[in-house]
Amino acid sequence: MTYCCALRLKDGLVFISDTRTNAGVDQISVFRKLYTFGVHQERFIAIQTAGNLATTQAVIGYLRNQIALKQEPNLYTVNTMFEVAQLVGRTLRKVIQDVTEDTQEQSNYYCSLLVGGQIEDAELQLYNIYPQGNFICATKDTPFFQIGESKYGKPILDRALTYDMPLDEAIRCSLISFDSTLRSNVSVGMPLDLLVYRVDSLKIPQGKRITSEDAYFHQISTQWSETLRRGLHEIPKPSDDYLL
Amino acid sequence: MTYCCALRLKDGLVFISDTRTNAGVDQISVFRKLYTFGVHQERFIAIQTAGNLATTQAVIGYLRNQIALKQEPNLYTVNTMFEVAQLVGRTLRKVIQDVTEDTQEQSNYYCSLLVGGQIEDAELQLYNIYPQGNFICATKDTPFFQIGESKYGKPILDRALTYDMPLDEAIRCSLISFDSTLRSNVSVGMPLDLLVYRVDSLKIPQGKRITSEDAYFHQISTQWSETLRRGLHEIPKPSDDYLL
Repeated sequence: MTYCCALRLKDGLVFISDTRTNAGVDQISVFRKLYTFGVHQERFIAIQTAGNLATTQAVIGYLRNQIALKQEPNLYTVNTMFEVAQLVGRTLRKVIQDVTEDTQEQSNYYCSLLVGGQIEDAELQLYNIYPQGNFICATKDTPFFQIGESKYGKPILDRALTYDMPLDEAIRCSLISFDSTLRSNVSVGMPLDLLVYRVDSLKIPQGKRITSEDAYFHQISTQWSETLRRGLHEIPKPSDDYLL
Repeated sequence: MTYCCALRLKDGLVFISDTRTNAGVDQISVFRKLYTFGVHQERFIAIQTAGNLATTQAVIGYLRNQIALKQEPNLYTVNTMFEVAQLVGRTLRKVIQDVTEDTQEQSNYYCSLLVGGQIEDAELQLYNIYPQGNFICATKDTPFFQIGESKYGKPILDRALTYDMPLDEAIRCSLISFDSTLRSNVSVGMPLDLLVYRVDSLKIPQGKRITSEDAYFHQISTQWSETLRRGLHEIPKPSDDYLL
């Protein structure tokens, strides 16, 4: 399983991915699920992946290969983020078609992708790309996407995250979302990869790997448990007719 | 969809169910998913249902019919909660077998059940009964079960609920779990049915229906949003290396 979350906010983009892959409960590995592409001062593109690992690695492999061999189109020559999403979507669809030529069970080979970035002075964009190659775009009303094990971590995002939230607060909110998911589903695992892109910076962030020893993440986790327990105690007791 | 949650705690049992059923998004109804059985001063049994509505109603129908016609065994003559779980499990399995005699697609007709209660001076029990008719039993380590749309509401239970928690606090905790689920999944809907059974009382609680106008539930919902937002602000900002 996997949990990836991406935010498109007023001040920039935030991407967080876990790194656990599993084929059965006794075959667990660490694989990065957050990839970056870009040309300094011109374009920044990040891709997060959830689903069949061979499929996601093939998609990234094709995209890198196109760049290396200067095949057209590629991520460094398309003109807009919309064209980035189209290229990634077509690549994903082709990978799935190739591997499932002889089978009807396409869904075993599915993956989902989040693709965000900025090209020159155009707007930031964030896309959620489906296995069929089509996609949807984040908006001010819905400023975040999740792929993989999304449910445990969704309530905090639904309640607290807004488009206008400062990046540092949005990072805290997302890390809480990850902490909730990590606690409830062992197939989502540390370390996490965090990447923050500031709007109009047009530089490729180096990102931060958050390990299980990370003191800040540990503090968030502990403090959040305390917040919930305290909040629970602060709620007034139900009246007697709730206990009849 | 459905969300039902049941707790087996030191002081008693708590059951909460939503009431929304849907066949597609344009065919939404209100159906009770929490049923009680019992004999005053002798036994109390509650059943919660999630899954195919015809299956769950057939199971309850059979169980009531057995009692009405004094067929043996029935819920009022079996000796222990273990035998209650066996009887309910066999009934569920039979209903699914009957309706799927001519099809391989059994899973469309599946349902899951939570069954809790107490008979005379034996221990409280809570069982999670699977479509195959087998079941597991709640323990001090794992004092709650959920069926239906369980993920959105699980983090608060995982973090806060304990076996020794007083019933009124456990009710608050469960209502928060429901509020999170209701906000994130429109196929789980008000009103809610709440039932609290105090250990050794051996009486059938009347229960409480919590409607969307319920002032206490509204307060929990509002106050919990405030708790989360305040807790988020209280978490220290990440250091600069998280934003590189």
